[in-house]
Amino acid sequence: MDVEDKYFKNISSRERAIFEGAITMGALFHQFIGTPVNSESAEMLEKSIKRAMELQPCIEKVEVKIDRKMLEEAKSEFDYVSLNGDMIDVRVVSTYNNKKAVLRMEYIKELKYPLMYVEYIDE
Amino acid sequence: MDVEDKYFKNISSRERAIFEGAITMGALFHQFIGTPVNSESAEMLEKSIKRAMELQPCIEKVEVKIDRKMLEEAKSEFDYVSLNGDMIDVRVVSTYNNKKAVLRMEYIKELKYPLMYVEYIDE
Amino acid sequence: MDVEDKYFKNISSRERAIFEGAITMGALFHQFIGTPVNSESAEMLEKSIKRAMELQPCIEKVEVKIDRKMLEEAKSEFDYVSLNGDMIDVRVVSTYNNKKAVLRMEYIKELKYPLMYVEYIDE
Amino acid sequence: MDVEDKYFKNISSRERAIFEGAITMGALFHQFIGTPVNSESAEMLEKSIKRAMELQPCIEKVEVKIDRKMLEEAKSEFDYVSLNGDMIDVRVVSTYNNKKAVLRMEYIKELKYPLMYVEYIDE
Repeated sequence: MDVEDKYFKNISSRERAIFEGAITMGALFHQFIGTPVNSESAEMLEKSIKRAMELQPCIEKVEVKIDRKMLEEAKSEFDYVSLNGDMIDVRVVSTYNNKKAVLRMEYIKELKYPLMYVEYIDE
Repeated sequence: MDVEDKYFKNISSRERAIFEGAITMGALFHQFIGTPVNSESAEMLEKSIKRAMELQPCIEKVEVKIDRKMLEEAKSEFDYVSLNGDMIDVRVVSTYNNKKAVLRMEYIKELKYPLMYVEYIDE
Repeated sequence: MDVEDKYFKNISSRERAIFEGAITMGALFHQFIGTPVNSESAEMLEKSIKRAMELQPCIEKVEVKIDRKMLEEAKSEFDYVSLNGDMIDVRVVSTYNNKKAVLRMEYIKELKYPLMYVEYIDE
Repeated sequence: MDVEDKYFKNISSRERAIFEGAITMGALFHQFIGTPVNSESAEMLEKSIKRAMELQPCIEKVEVKIDRKMLEEAKSEFDYVSLNGDMIDVRVVSTYNNKKAVLRMEYIKELKYPLMYVEYIDE
């Protein structure tokens, strides 16, 4: 089966890059929110999220930063915390047919919301 | 803050509808895969997934069908199963500024993959 | 295969009730944390979590309360929030061979932690 | 606050070890099921799950093995798969007051179920 031909002819390359990047962004958030983490394990978790999400279709690169200062502040009596949407900053780079999209998730305090948006997109 | 103006001016209404729908699709899969379910609880789970995911920005409608026959076949000794990607069929309708996108997730046996694609998109 | 005989002869009925209840408690938290929710959808989500988790072995009853006041306070610009460990209060009743355990999860502010403990156990 | 005194006086050290180990087992399964993985990323994911779950109270050691052969067999057109309950084998070692419990999760084909049980417990 030609997957591209059968399922993706109705959208442009630019739209496809946005589509695949956005799936990965939503997936990343809802897969890993809740994971136990602290300052010592944060780097390992960042790398592991990156590796997992870079497997998805059209994903070229994923960068994940977990806010170490927030980890320290949120830390419970038991020296760790459940990963939360206000602690992570993510960039997902997706490409389809030379069209590249850079998607971003960052927590916006004013909105009380981990906003996902398109940071850069090829013309 | 004008969120639309600050974060979303670089993409078209059509792209925005795709973007928000795709986030919700990825989110839905990775939030609910693994949930204990059987034939008796499937309808409740479908409704609950629908209600949760319809809260996300620009999402007009979510339809979730859990395959009852597969639930029966996959059922363990303990009379339930963990929700799996090959058991669900999802439609997400997202709209931005009169541009509507219908996104679909269905398990494609030939690909051994729960494929997400754009089923319909306004011109 | 006699599952009980093969895998569970080394622990008492009381220990088994604790074991199964604790699995369900950990499962519930990590399955549903992150789910989009607001005041309108909270009741549906509570019921759906209850139904899903009551499917697990030896689980007699699950009660889930999502704190409506916290939902309102945490609500983002987009009128919903991701379900968080400090918003839920859970009771899991598990029984094995007439031995009943009631497990509880509640957020303890002093510990900054959603503590799980055994609230009641048959002698 | 003396957490031990306030919340855990009603169970024995042996029961406590079982309790904490079982929470971690349920948590591990429902946190990580669904994660994208293939043969190349499996080792990183195993380590990351181990690090995350070893943070939980009373957990001494976590061992996770993802079945490489099953990863290959289940692999989709897109060269990865969502982590599934039949692909992982887990040991959780928990200790409280010199009482050690070894909990195990393994997929039992005959039951079509990833069974969790107590593999070893101190007298």
